[in-house]
Amino acid sequence: MPRKVDHDQRRRHIVEALLRITSARGLDAISLREVAHEAGVSMGAVQHYFATKDDMLLFALQQWLRLSVHDRFTARVESRIAADATESPIAVLRAIAAEYLPHDEVTRAEVRISVAFLSRAAVEPALAPYIAAAFAGFTRSMHDLFQSTGLSRDPAAEAQRLAALLDGLRLPVLVGALSYQDALAVVNRHLTVVETVEQNHEPTDP
Amino acid sequence: MPRKVDHDQRRRHIVEALLRITSARGLDAISLREVAHEAGVSMGAVQHYFATKDDMLLFALQQWLRLSVHDRFTARVESRIAADATESPIAVLRAIAAEYLPHDEVTRAEVRISVAFLSRAAVEPALAPYIAAAFAGFTRSMHDLFQSTGLSRDPAAEAQRLAALLDGLRLPVLVGALSYQDALAVVNRHLTVVETVEQNHEPTDP
Repeated sequence: MPRKVDHDQRRRHIVEALLRITSARGLDAISLREVAHEAGVSMGAVQHYFATKDDMLLFALQQWLRLSVHDRFTARVESRIAADATESPIAVLRAIAAEYLPHDEVTRAEVRISVAFLSRAAVEPALAPYIAAAFAGFTRSMHDLFQSTGLSRDPAAEAQRLAALLDGLRLPVLVGALSYQDALAVVNRHLTVVETVEQNHEPTDP
Repeated sequence: MPRKVDHDQRRRHIVEALLRITSARGLDAISLREVAHEAGVSMGAVQHYFATKDDMLLFALQQWLRLSVHDRFTARVESRIAADATESPIAVLRAIAAEYLPHDEVTRAEVRISVAFLSRAAVEPALAPYIAAAFAGFTRSMHDLFQSTGLSRDPAAEAQRLAALLDGLRLPVLVGALSYQDALAVVNRHLTVVETVEQNHEPTDP
């Protein structure tokens, strides 16, 4: 029987267990015992890969940012864009908004995990730079869109405004202060205003 | 010696200890033992007032929303407005933004406590309605400003957009993805665009 252990795969498996617990019960439900139980491995196995809870959380945050936030989110946005015939820059931004706001169990879980890591990064300096980089990356991707499509004369400012708007709408939707449709309407109205302001702008001499 | 215990005062004292721990180390540092130690009371005294950790968190959230978020925030905004000679509606919104974004230890602690409760509300249905009501109250206060000052023809939509924008900027500032000044500049630019769009609007027949 082959007994060669794929350590990366083992580590990812443990992190997936940690993320499931976090999504269901928050980061304060995380312990060596709970993670081992959820992953179906021994506590010794978890300790073999992660010396401390902080080590485990840091690795989990990095893996989650890479897989869920970057790869899976990008794939979902791309499939939305592919399904949209208009292909305008605004349609791409609408697709990003539609996927970013929580609307099904997968995206609601993403927001629950996101706020759990944010709360941890707020008091744990080791996590903060990864969260800051994720914010910067999200803003940059919208900056590139605003810039490459000529949608705005001030792509940096518009990207920051849109990124903050989207981030600020996720939790009100999650806790039921705002419906998904109402939140999307806020974003769509915002994008319409951005377009209108650009079109009505009187060109000025430099 | 008078031994009459002011139960409300005792309960508030315990909650203040809980909030100090939350601000420093997050909600997962909260335990009966830690709260009793921080408050300088016995574990029995804490248990006398709060049967479970969830009870304690719910009471803490309610007290925090009332005192810190409502009373103290309002007082800080009012003192900013009093210091501003212009007294325009936009100046009031700028004062709200300037206080809402984290810029000193008091406001940074508010954001750390806020994200801790948000992360808890994401997985604990008993807390979610209080958080949802807080979102709604924040939006409503801006709605009233947009409406009473005639700053916008669509006060509900503008209030939701501004509330989300402000909420979305707090954590990037806290974790260092954006400076306080840059975040304020995003809000000020937003408010300028809102004013401009209103002024350039061509009146249409109803």
